[in-house]
Amino acid sequence: MAQNYSFKYFTVQFPAENPYVAHVEINRADKMNAFFEAMWLEMRQVFTQLSEDSSVRAIVLSGAGEKAFTAGLDVKAASQGGPLSSDSNLDPARKAVHLRRHVLEFQDCISAVERCEKPVIAAMHGFSLGLAIDLSTAADVRLCSKDVRFAVKEVDIGLAADIGTLSRLPKVVGNFGWVKEVALSARIFGAEEALRVGFVNSVYENRAATIAAALKLATLIASKSPVAVQGTKEILNWSRDHSVQDGLRYTGVWNSAALQTGDVSAALLSGLQKRTPTFEKL
Amino acid sequence: MAQNYSFKYFTVQFPAENPYVAHVEINRADKMNAFFEAMWLEMRQVFTQLSEDSSVRAIVLSGAGEKAFTAGLDVKAASQGGPLSSDSNLDPARKAVHLRRHVLEFQDCISAVERCEKPVIAAMHGFSLGLAIDLSTAADVRLCSKDVRFAVKEVDIGLAADIGTLSRLPKVVGNFGWVKEVALSARIFGAEEALRVGFVNSVYENRAATIAAALKLATLIASKSPVAVQGTKEILNWSRDHSVQDGLRYTGVWNSAALQTGDVSAALLSGLQKRTPTFEKL
Amino acid sequence: MAQNYSFKYFTVQFPAENPYVAHVEINRADKMNAFFEAMWLEMRQVFTQLSEDSSVRAIVLSGAGEKAFTAGLDVKAASQGGPLSSDSNLDPARKAVHLRRHVLEFQDCISAVERCEKPVIAAMHGFSLGLAIDLSTAADVRLCSKDVRFAVKEVDIGLAADIGTLSRLPKVVGNFGWVKEVALSARIFGAEEALRVGFVNSVYENRAATIAAALKLATLIASKSPVAVQGTKEILNWSRDHSVQDGLRYTGVWNSAALQTGDVSAALLSGLQKRTPTFEKL
Amino acid sequence: MAQNYSFKYFTVQFPAENPYVAHVEINRADKMNAFFEAMWLEMRQVFTQLSEDSSVRAIVLSGAGEKAFTAGLDVKAASQGGPLSSDSNLDPARKAVHLRRHVLEFQDCISAVERCEKPVIAAMHGFSLGLAIDLSTAADVRLCSKDVRFAVKEVDIGLAADIGTLSRLPKVVGNFGWVKEVALSARIFGAEEALRVGFVNSVYENRAATIAAALKLATLIASKSPVAVQGTKEILNWSRDHSVQDGLRYTGVWNSAALQTGDVSAALLSGLQKRTPTFEKL
Amino acid sequence: MAQNYSFKYFTVQFPAENPYVAHVEINRADKMNAFFEAMWLEMRQVFTQLSEDSSVRAIVLSGAGEKAFTAGLDVKAASQGGPLSSDSNLDPARKAVHLRRHVLEFQDCISAVERCEKPVIAAMHGFSLGLAIDLSTAADVRLCSKDVRFAVKEVDIGLAADIGTLSRLPKVVGNFGWVKEVALSARIFGAEEALRVGFVNSVYENRAATIAAALKLATLIASKSPVAVQGTKEILNWSRDHSVQDGLRYTGVWNSAALQTGDVSAALLSGLQKRTPTFEKL
Amino acid sequence: MAQNYSFKYFTVQFPAENPYVAHVEINRADKMNAFFEAMWLEMRQVFTQLSEDSSVRAIVLSGAGEKAFTAGLDVKAASQGGPLSSDSNLDPARKAVHLRRHVLEFQDCISAVERCEKPVIAAMHGFSLGLAIDLSTAADVRLCSKDVRFAVKEVDIGLAADIGTLSRLPKVVGNFGWVKEVALSARIFGAEEALRVGFVNSVYENRAATIAAALKLATLIASKSPVAVQGTKEILNWSRDHSVQDGLRYTGVWNSAALQTGDVSAALLSGLQKRTPTFEKL
Repeated sequence: MAQNYSFKYFTVQFPAENPYVAHVEINRADKMNAFFEAMWLEMRQVFTQLSEDSSVRAIVLSGAGEKAFTAGLDVKAASQGGPLSSDSNLDPARKAVHLRRHVLEFQDCISAVERCEKPVIAAMHGFSLGLAIDLSTAADVRLCSKDVRFAVKEVDIGLAADIGTLSRLPKVVGNFGWVKEVALSARIFGAEEALRVGFVNSVYENRAATIAAALKLATLIASKSPVAVQGTKEILNWSRDHSVQDGLRYTGVWNSAALQTGDVSAALLSGLQKRTPTFEKL
Repeated sequence: MAQNYSFKYFTVQFPAENPYVAHVEINRADKMNAFFEAMWLEMRQVFTQLSEDSSVRAIVLSGAGEKAFTAGLDVKAASQGGPLSSDSNLDPARKAVHLRRHVLEFQDCISAVERCEKPVIAAMHGFSLGLAIDLSTAADVRLCSKDVRFAVKEVDIGLAADIGTLSRLPKVVGNFGWVKEVALSARIFGAEEALRVGFVNSVYENRAATIAAALKLATLIASKSPVAVQGTKEILNWSRDHSVQDGLRYTGVWNSAALQTGDVSAALLSGLQKRTPTFEKL
Repeated sequence: MAQNYSFKYFTVQFPAENPYVAHVEINRADKMNAFFEAMWLEMRQVFTQLSEDSSVRAIVLSGAGEKAFTAGLDVKAASQGGPLSSDSNLDPARKAVHLRRHVLEFQDCISAVERCEKPVIAAMHGFSLGLAIDLSTAADVRLCSKDVRFAVKEVDIGLAADIGTLSRLPKVVGNFGWVKEVALSARIFGAEEALRVGFVNSVYENRAATIAAALKLATLIASKSPVAVQGTKEILNWSRDHSVQDGLRYTGVWNSAALQTGDVSAALLSGLQKRTPTFEKL
Repeated sequence: MAQNYSFKYFTVQFPAENPYVAHVEINRADKMNAFFEAMWLEMRQVFTQLSEDSSVRAIVLSGAGEKAFTAGLDVKAASQGGPLSSDSNLDPARKAVHLRRHVLEFQDCISAVERCEKPVIAAMHGFSLGLAIDLSTAADVRLCSKDVRFAVKEVDIGLAADIGTLSRLPKVVGNFGWVKEVALSARIFGAEEALRVGFVNSVYENRAATIAAALKLATLIASKSPVAVQGTKEILNWSRDHSVQDGLRYTGVWNSAALQTGDVSAALLSGLQKRTPTFEKL
Repeated sequence: MAQNYSFKYFTVQFPAENPYVAHVEINRADKMNAFFEAMWLEMRQVFTQLSEDSSVRAIVLSGAGEKAFTAGLDVKAASQGGPLSSDSNLDPARKAVHLRRHVLEFQDCISAVERCEKPVIAAMHGFSLGLAIDLSTAADVRLCSKDVRFAVKEVDIGLAADIGTLSRLPKVVGNFGWVKEVALSARIFGAEEALRVGFVNSVYENRAATIAAALKLATLIASKSPVAVQGTKEILNWSRDHSVQDGLRYTGVWNSAALQTGDVSAALLSGLQKRTPTFEKL
Repeated sequence: MAQNYSFKYFTVQFPAENPYVAHVEINRADKMNAFFEAMWLEMRQVFTQLSEDSSVRAIVLSGAGEKAFTAGLDVKAASQGGPLSSDSNLDPARKAVHLRRHVLEFQDCISAVERCEKPVIAAMHGFSLGLAIDLSTAADVRLCSKDVRFAVKEVDIGLAADIGTLSRLPKVVGNFGWVKEVALSARIFGAEEALRVGFVNSVYENRAATIAAALKLATLIASKSPVAVQGTKEILNWSRDHSVQDGLRYTGVWNSAALQTGDVSAALLSGLQKRTPTFEKL
């Protein structure tokens, strides 16, 4: 039953004091957790596995080291290999095919966080640039420390952010003018501003406190019925991309199975008996 | 012309000092206005009737008693009958059909508030849990008192909220991370937080002051051209669920009839003459 | 190469100290910059031309005179001609056809601001009523001065706002209840409220300071890779109207060409050499 | 359990030789089954009731008398009352509100046939004009007799068909040019042409043979698992209105409950034992 | 009132025997009506003008000369100028911007035929290649002569058809496999095959007979209420791109104005009096 | 460069006489090519690999043995393992989660055929039941032999077809009534009917002739510019699921890179020189 979570660029831990919670950490502190291709491919594996691991009910994602959640794309690594560095003599149309495949694969790795059936809480600190924004908008809840330095950094290297920020950020915060400003100017913004516009839910003193708060929230969520929690994540994500009518219809179909769970009576009975309910794994 | 508004679980009043305004109140104070099936069926009737009543231009919805706008679903009633309590020996697929019909019918009753052609202002106080959120997100504007206690309560009883909150709340407030947090954790939040994230428009001292403010806003809206007001509600709701291009097109078609109203010249003339315009019923 | 920007109701300037920035000003100060048909037709020309002018990378839009960004539709002019004033004896169905054509044409002129490939920053002050809201929601970023007086004014003249506000405003600010309140009541709101709900990004002391700030932001944006900047605007606007999946796909296809720009290496090299990059025109 | 199907303008029969099949007939032969308001309201009742009647698995819809399935709208009745005949002195905008309510209500009655959870087979003969097309495109399968005379008749009375034909017919037949021709010219077309373009599935000698064939097909469908049949209807209708990706997702969620039916093992076992399976009601 | 239809590459005639019908002909017979940029820009003008000309109710589009409706893009002209021939030293990303603008402008000229409020009947003969397919799928009805030679020709010159065929053809004929085959292989197909798959409505002996039939159909359509006819075209095109629910809603709003036409009573009265109705211009 | 195509249940061959064509064959003739889980997982691998193999330009998919393309799901294998056979004591909500994951994974394997960037031609013969329909609707073109026996078989085993038929078949053939009839009745249909409704493009004498024709068509397609061919497949699939406007926009963006291919000049030059063009790999 216990799954194998031995990865190279990510640590996955199950803190004893947080039952059903997995703590995933980006583990390349010496390079400010900057990403290169092997890392995002591995990250997809991590979240795909957690998604179906019935002993996991909520996930915290953080970055190792004091300096950065992640400084974003490892530009040096990216320029030394891969399609961006291509010196091949393909014509631009053929190069475009390779670039598109590359971008779609990269996007898919980030989307694994959103596809993960369990809620994911991003606990961010220090440099949280570029890919950090893409990645965290695919998570469900974002917390950060006071020292965080966010930026939608891509225009500074000649790119329109291409792995999720431009599609997800405007649906995460409800201030389209602000999104445009930070995406068009690449300027740094801090914890207070992030809180004000709704990019993060809360701000904490430092990295440790942020992770502690994320684990606490994850533990609270993990104490609820997993049928209810996972259904809630799924229906919210579906509804974001559909009309209210389509959202309601999908909810009705989804719940026609979900309401047949034993968790409802478990929850109601516990309520009457003033004790904590226990739910089967999922 | 005067319609019959005699209902069992809802009072419908037309305060003399608020012309064209209907005040609907959930009227089951002894049970904290908790809902059971007969109530939501009746509520659909109320709003369907008000929608076409040409002497009504704006509606206020509140809850009777000091304790609660509504404490949500009457779980006891729900568990004693209806599909959730089913001990029948249908197979899960057949049970799912019954549950789906039940949920879709329930949703449709809540949607009657959104479908109502006249603006609806929810004046909320005290316990406003579960169904209170579903219901108020189908209204147009939400006001509340300082003592309000909101919660997207459903995960606490093993359910993903199924009658509107998950589809509408993210389109009401523009902070998706906050929506996820409160929907996944079922935690209580108060007036100040609700104001900060945009769930309510304003906060008032107590229930009476909230209702008074709602009636005042309703009266202001009711003083405007009903053609303009009802068109505005409709186009805003349509646009929420469509692209900007589709919104503009729909607006053009809608207004090709609406602009032929006498209200435009009535309004312009009144403006020149510095007096209050009078508009025909609608 | 230098284009001709001689217009009647708009001035277009290229401030020497703001390279690549165009400053467009509504130029009918004596009538509080109120719009009539010839003006919005001309405005479409202005933005269509700027969109393809490769010496322009960002645009500031402001209103001449101290009193108003624009007081909205010139109701007097509108009532003396055009479809609204029609005393013809067409039947209502035929009148509707004329009205619809008129509205769609008017909408298209406003949409020219959104279609413009370069970012547009609206610098607003004084009376900014009705059409001012429609117009500014088609811009990318909104700044304002302390003295600004905003209103979604249309219901006051018997209209549902029909040239963009109802479709775009809820996607610009993430507070649907607030949008409904101001659109249904036509009440005035000021700079502070606009900032709080996210309608504007920042507030400045007066008209001059607002325009200065807008030019500064435009200059910052104009210093970035135009390939990156214009792609960012386009992808953000597309994503607003599509699901996340469709947004990601579109981004992948868009960037398959855009990533082949020389701007990436120019930007990276400049980064290493600690100097300001230079980008080809676009 | 046996429901009451006593209606004024429709007969509902359960032929003994066709278990689980309901035969609905439009019953106003002396007026060529022309519809007026009370009829379409009643028709909605009929199909809403059949939708939830667990002893019904498939439905045949036909018209009484030899002359017509239905000659369409009873224009005389329509012109003597209802919004179309309105001589009231409402302004065009207010009249539009009444007309829109009327049309939407009328559409909803026709849509009851599509919403009905059980498959509906239309058996058409003789005059099948105007509303006959609207109605039959809301059914699942259309059969007809050789003598049928179809027409999308509305433009002949100054109307764009407004209760379903224009929305559904192009999704029923895959020949958009043909749809445009018959809808723009109102010309009559017969059985052979209807078969060729796919509007009907088969053509029969006369009314009786058409109804017999419809009952036979209904009986075949009724012999299959009702969980499978009703799911198939629902998913096909959903998929028509959504992308393939959204169709697949919905199917997955739908079937997560439906696959838990006992019908699968019943069907498989019967297959092995070469006997007809028996399925529980639904 | 009489508009000026003097164009260079198109003739526009109003045959006396076909009241309210405009006959547009592509007029470059010596080059098999092959298109270059000035032609499609002019074509947009033609259809934009006809769209609002109230003395026009239906349009026939044909090609001059016996050889071709149009042989498609004038490749020679295209390669001597314009973005495709570009030998500039822009980087591929910048070149892409120019190409995209060019394609979108070109598409918009073709879409003018679809946007035209009056029905357009394409009468095709001889070579009808490439652009001929794009163009005719933007028309409402397609007729052809026996000698027609169709091909989705673009892959033969290294292009994916980019000005409408790939978006519209699958919605015009309901056979997606056939569309893929002809679009991927660029093979020629004739009148019989076009009729079988529903690409054309009917086949005629030769060019003259095809144009005569088109004019006859146009005259029939022009004899109907223009309010009904133009509404039918618009609602059919809208419904093609939306769900049935959205189609019904749009129809309801559209008809709330359209039903107020005098054409309904004119048509009904004429019906009773057995005479041809007369309708006001539109 | 030569890739490794050694699979267990599928053979992949590159016929010498068909340059750039891959011939994939389902290789389980002794079981009538019935599928079990390992097979569809492998099939996804096959098509994912072919999609990016630049020496492949078109693909033919057929079934080994004379009896069947595929008889569908191997019901016996399916009932002995996997979620359908589950005797676990999970509650229905938890079982639903497992079933949904299973169905979505299964669907994704079938969708690999649609996602494959190269055109896929299905050559079908003999029994082609259930999954055969799902699979072939994910292909681009379908050919069949006279002896083929098709059926949307799922309702016969108590299922609504869940891996693609219900979402894709109505978009492949344009006859919704026919789709409903065969999906609701599970009846067998043959080659002639399949041709008439547009499910297959052509019918051939026997299996060998069908495969030969498929290879010939694939070879023809493979002789065209791969940039043009692959773009055509992608844009057609995108357009199927989007409005015409969104289709045109996507095409414009796609082609802004694709038009920069050397294939256009290669094709034009070959045309002038009357020789077969050669295109670079893709």
